[in-house]
Amino acid sequence: MTSVPSASYSITVRLEVPAGGRAVSELTAAVEHAGGTITALDVTASGHERLRIDVTCAATDTAHADRLVEVLRQVAGVAIHKVSDRTFLMHLGGKIEMQAKHPIRNRDDLSMIYTPGVARVSMAIAANPDDARRLTIKRNSVAVVSDGSAVLGLGNIGPHAALPVMEGKAALFKRFAGIDAWPLCLDTQDVDTIVEVVRSIAPGFAGINLEDISAPRCFEVERRLRDLLDIPVFHDDQHGTAIVVLAALTNALRIVGKDLAHVRIVMSGAGAAGSAILRLLLAAGAKDVLVADIDGVIHAGREGLSPELRWIAEHTNQARYAGDLHGAVVGADVFVGVSAPNVLAGADVATMNKGAIVFALANPDPEVDPAEAREHASVVATGRSDYPNQINNVLAFPGVFRGLLDAQSHHVDETMLLAAAQAIANVVTEDQLNVNYVIPSVFHPDVHSAVAAAVRDAVAASSH
Amino acid sequence: MTSVPSASYSITVRLEVPAGGRAVSELTAAVEHAGGTITALDVTASGHERLRIDVTCAATDTAHADRLVEVLRQVAGVAIHKVSDRTFLMHLGGKIEMQAKHPIRNRDDLSMIYTPGVARVSMAIAANPDDARRLTIKRNSVAVVSDGSAVLGLGNIGPHAALPVMEGKAALFKRFAGIDAWPLCLDTQDVDTIVEVVRSIAPGFAGINLEDISAPRCFEVERRLRDLLDIPVFHDDQHGTAIVVLAALTNALRIVGKDLAHVRIVMSGAGAAGSAILRLLLAAGAKDVLVADIDGVIHAGREGLSPELRWIAEHTNQARYAGDLHGAVVGADVFVGVSAPNVLAGADVATMNKGAIVFALANPDPEVDPAEAREHASVVATGRSDYPNQINNVLAFPGVFRGLLDAQSHHVDETMLLAAAQAIANVVTEDQLNVNYVIPSVFHPDVHSAVAAAVRDAVAASSH
Repeated sequence: MTSVPSASYSITVRLEVPAGGRAVSELTAAVEHAGGTITALDVTASGHERLRIDVTCAATDTAHADRLVEVLRQVAGVAIHKVSDRTFLMHLGGKIEMQAKHPIRNRDDLSMIYTPGVARVSMAIAANPDDARRLTIKRNSVAVVSDGSAVLGLGNIGPHAALPVMEGKAALFKRFAGIDAWPLCLDTQDVDTIVEVVRSIAPGFAGINLEDISAPRCFEVERRLRDLLDIPVFHDDQHGTAIVVLAALTNALRIVGKDLAHVRIVMSGAGAAGSAILRLLLAAGAKDVLVADIDGVIHAGREGLSPELRWIAEHTNQARYAGDLHGAVVGADVFVGVSAPNVLAGADVATMNKGAIVFALANPDPEVDPAEAREHASVVATGRSDYPNQINNVLAFPGVFRGLLDAQSHHVDETMLLAAAQAIANVVTEDQLNVNYVIPSVFHPDVHSAVAAAVRDAVAASSH
Repeated sequence: MTSVPSASYSITVRLEVPAGGRAVSELTAAVEHAGGTITALDVTASGHERLRIDVTCAATDTAHADRLVEVLRQVAGVAIHKVSDRTFLMHLGGKIEMQAKHPIRNRDDLSMIYTPGVARVSMAIAANPDDARRLTIKRNSVAVVSDGSAVLGLGNIGPHAALPVMEGKAALFKRFAGIDAWPLCLDTQDVDTIVEVVRSIAPGFAGINLEDISAPRCFEVERRLRDLLDIPVFHDDQHGTAIVVLAALTNALRIVGKDLAHVRIVMSGAGAAGSAILRLLLAAGAKDVLVADIDGVIHAGREGLSPELRWIAEHTNQARYAGDLHGAVVGADVFVGVSAPNVLAGADVATMNKGAIVFALANPDPEVDPAEAREHASVVATGRSDYPNQINNVLAFPGVFRGLLDAQSHHVDETMLLAAAQAIANVVTEDQLNVNYVIPSVFHPDVHSAVAAAVRDAVAASSH
């Protein structure tokens, strides 16, 4: 499995070269020979003797970026001035900001936006609290809440280190759904405290997006907040992932001509994402599922099951298969991995049923090398942006919240998640559907509005 | 005391009148005769027979606005279509929003702003948490936190009704100091919970602005948070008010040629604002202060003093005067009211020392009618925008936080508050200083940057 150069490891090297001669073409050749991709080459100052050039190139990782700088340095006549990391430059000072919607030019503006005029608006809301959805940001605001305990694949890196991710999430909420989200990174990992903090800050928001909270704490946090609050609470690592997996699986099954109710699904991973995927698959009609964790396939006879694993044992694996993952995938139709790198080999995929579907979502290194899986499976999807069929939560959460907010929903339930998954799947038309396109791009112009509309309808249906 | 029409009670009346004749001029005359002020008259549709006109007029209060609609309705030939309240229109959907600083146009943008690129930024912060101030919004973010217990003069109206005020505050932070503030209105009024919530959400912010939390809980909340957090915590109702009162008093004393160390100051009100004003006046050098609350002047011999009032008794009123406010102001040089309407009469002001200074800050109805006070005092200030010398917190808090954030201060102390007050006072030059201009406008082009610079310097001095 080799990586391709990516903008996320992109550097800009400011350097000087002699004005005449072949130095510029040598720069390009050197970078390309070293496996980099030049994406921009700007001459920022020019003289008779020397040129100053900003060379922007994509690398595969940090070490590769360092190597590209070295090969540039070795081109004859080059002087390196400064190396900038484009990703870090984009994060300087943060990626989001607060903006006022109206100008405050003079005392009249001030007297309407702030005192004394604002007092009348406050009194109106005090008399009728529902008016907060009309007269404040509550209508369109979502809190993005993390305790920094399970950030991306990086683990328990704490609230400060989680902040860039939550800011990015807020930026995506705006970009894809026009939602005003603000990140709240909590200096606590205690379930009671997290619940009390989120309960307390809820009045100013119309929804809570929990993010990157580790299992099993995330289950209790979400369950208790859903009981306490009158706004929807959605742990994206669970339900966002589950929605997109179901959407992709729906289309993959269309390709291989199988029915969800009749396929055998083997899952690897029983954490936050795994348990949410399982529940949504069952709600969508899947009947034959096996779930493996690090100790093998979960079955009702296994000792020491936690409440979460007990629930899984009771709702899966009716035959009480007690072997390992390798044995479980033999003859299976679908594999869904949300666990760890390289738990399966290509040879395991070869033992699956004809028309096999493999979703290997561990990031950055999947459960099975997607190129090897592709040799034996009909459809392969990963969590990576450099392979076809990326299972990406960004397909789900903006539209889900847009729908919930538009419908002023007080909760979120499985019917809404199922509707969102179906909407994403339906964005791929019969004409477009193929093994490398079971799921639309996050930049597809219709996907977020389609999800929002489906969720709005589901909210309306649930309140009848 | 009569009010003048204000933009904060401004309505737009959409109506139709006959195209010919005197109807339009009668509209204007009717509004003005009824005491309103027409601020705009837009013909939005015109035909041979009828004109459709949007008449915008300022009223003195809600009842007056209703009356203006009635007088318009009675003009011959007028048909009223719709009446809009401009203040409510400005609040529809909230007054602030979240914006991303960078466009997300394609997968490359996404891979730098979000995954996988953001992981490197998170890892950098995990390795060096101080980098959160460089690579996230923390550097420029302030949480505006209220429990809705003492909102403006409206009392305990709760978190939803407080939200328009906190949004307005956030808008002012941006307008006057470029700060990204986000409102957090808490569904709790329990001190322990407020402290734990604010402590928990602190990682994403470089400062905490507490707002409209009732006394005495506000004292404990602030004290405990200052102990717990490594970012400045500032209760604006206390310290913002204190800074602006000290600034105005500094300039008022320049006018009457008296020295803070030698004047007798009588205060009415020992709540959040009163106690903070007292502490700052003492820190600035005031030596002879008496503070009255609803039970009369506070003195060491009074029974049942709370810890806060005990502190006041020990630091004021050395002569142990035990009478009422009326008696206390006899011969006093300065009166500062942060209490209730009409606790003094003009006749009381007449008993003060020559060159008396009266700050009657209760809102909207001051402690003494400012027009009556002005007959006997040399300088009069209020909290109202329709009198000269408005004591307005907006003069202080944006610049104070700008300075604290620029200096990456971990706390705020009295030296910084004193520096801010001096900076505001100094914005008024000797040439400009007069009894109707002891304090600059919040729109003064220099005031916020002057406060920020003074606070930055004070932070630098305090870290030596």
